[in-house]
Amino acid sequence: MTTRDAFPAGDLVLGFDADDTLWHNECIFEKTHERYRALLARYHDAATVDRTLFATEMRNLDLYGYGVKGFTLSAIETAIELTAGKISAEEIRELIGLGRAMLAHPVELLDGATAALETLARRHRTLLITKGDLRDQQRKLAKSGLAGFFAHVEIVSEKDETTYAEIFRRHAIVPQRFVMVGNSVKSDILPVLALGGAGIHVPYRILWAAEHAEEAPPAGSRFFRLESLHGLPAIVDALR
Amino acid sequence: MTTRDAFPAGDLVLGFDADDTLWHNECIFEKTHERYRALLARYHDAATVDRTLFATEMRNLDLYGYGVKGFTLSAIETAIELTAGKISAEEIRELIGLGRAMLAHPVELLDGATAALETLARRHRTLLITKGDLRDQQRKLAKSGLAGFFAHVEIVSEKDETTYAEIFRRHAIVPQRFVMVGNSVKSDILPVLALGGAGIHVPYRILWAAEHAEEAPPAGSRFFRLESLHGLPAIVDALR
Repeated sequence: MTTRDAFPAGDLVLGFDADDTLWHNECIFEKTHERYRALLARYHDAATVDRTLFATEMRNLDLYGYGVKGFTLSAIETAIELTAGKISAEEIRELIGLGRAMLAHPVELLDGATAALETLARRHRTLLITKGDLRDQQRKLAKSGLAGFFAHVEIVSEKDETTYAEIFRRHAIVPQRFVMVGNSVKSDILPVLALGGAGIHVPYRILWAAEHAEEAPPAGSRFFRLESLHGLPAIVDALR
Repeated sequence: MTTRDAFPAGDLVLGFDADDTLWHNECIFEKTHERYRALLARYHDAATVDRTLFATEMRNLDLYGYGVKGFTLSAIETAIELTAGKISAEEIRELIGLGRAMLAHPVELLDGATAALETLARRHRTLLITKGDLRDQQRKLAKSGLAGFFAHVEIVSEKDETTYAEIFRRHAIVPQRFVMVGNSVKSDILPVLALGGAGIHVPYRILWAAEHAEEAPPAGSRFFRLESLHGLPAIVDALR
């Protein structure tokens, strides 16, 4: 029996984002940013450091994609630029160490994640849909102890309409019966709504600037916002 | 009609590796290695540079995974180590540029790749199975013009028995009816043979040391070696 046969065909299929939805992520970047600002404080104020690093990241995004390794390379590049080459090799070694510490960081689950999955994965076919470095996302999933809840794991390079449509096709998901749960309106909610699915937005306390959504979910769409994952099973139940 | 229905259920399913099987890859790394040795030539001989860089890559492999971004970070780390911190920020910027050039490098197909796929993808369900950076591998596939030949694309973080078994399960492939084509005995041939499939080894002129296989394919296994992809359709035909 495949996973697909275990649930009624017309029932809801659930998609979960991972970083900042099931486990803490942006707060780890935030700690790294603090050390990065301190390292460059004798050259520039924090706002300039933040702005320049973000500009480098956005310039490199198409080439590097999301994830810690690309971030580390952008951080080194920015540090060289902001210090006009005066940064020392020892300080660059420290930046490499900051990146490595992020990759090796323990996975800290968000409040209610395990309980929500325990309830929902028994009732619904459940997918993990996340972007980032392939190995890093796999490692975090393994460390999280949540892998067993997911029928499929999709690690993708971008979360846009094309990607979700491809996932729906691959797993024979009817968009109207799909619900995506995530912290990013831009990556988790808007593309799914556009394809006819439902979205449950669970904001994290920090949102990376690149995930800022220009638009709000359209009026009349099946869109919900929750404070935490605790209320999720009840909302999903109401959507059935 | 899904792709699966387009071919007789008992027919062979083909898997292709990508780097150094369908397009040149190791020769791009080789060019980068040459420039890297030149950059460090005033500190160390080429053999020491190569040996130390490889040791750093292997030490970081579990954390970084395969791909250009991890390679670039390891190259920066090694350069700092080999120069005892005397490498300049400008030289590190050059290393970042070398990495970026590898990511932006044009895709040059190997001789016979298009013709072999044109013939074989019409007759068999065909998968691309490759490891490395997610976005980089997707970009190379897009640039290659070969994407249309593949029913499924699997970008994985390691090519071992576990990974192939998971791919077989996901795509309902009978291992005994699966043939993997690739340049690495370690990653493309041995795990597939161990699971009961067949392997066609098409060596590339350079093999990265990490892909060196300690063992030879076991006697009596369905294992073949080809000089180039030109002979591939005939061999696959003989395997049916």
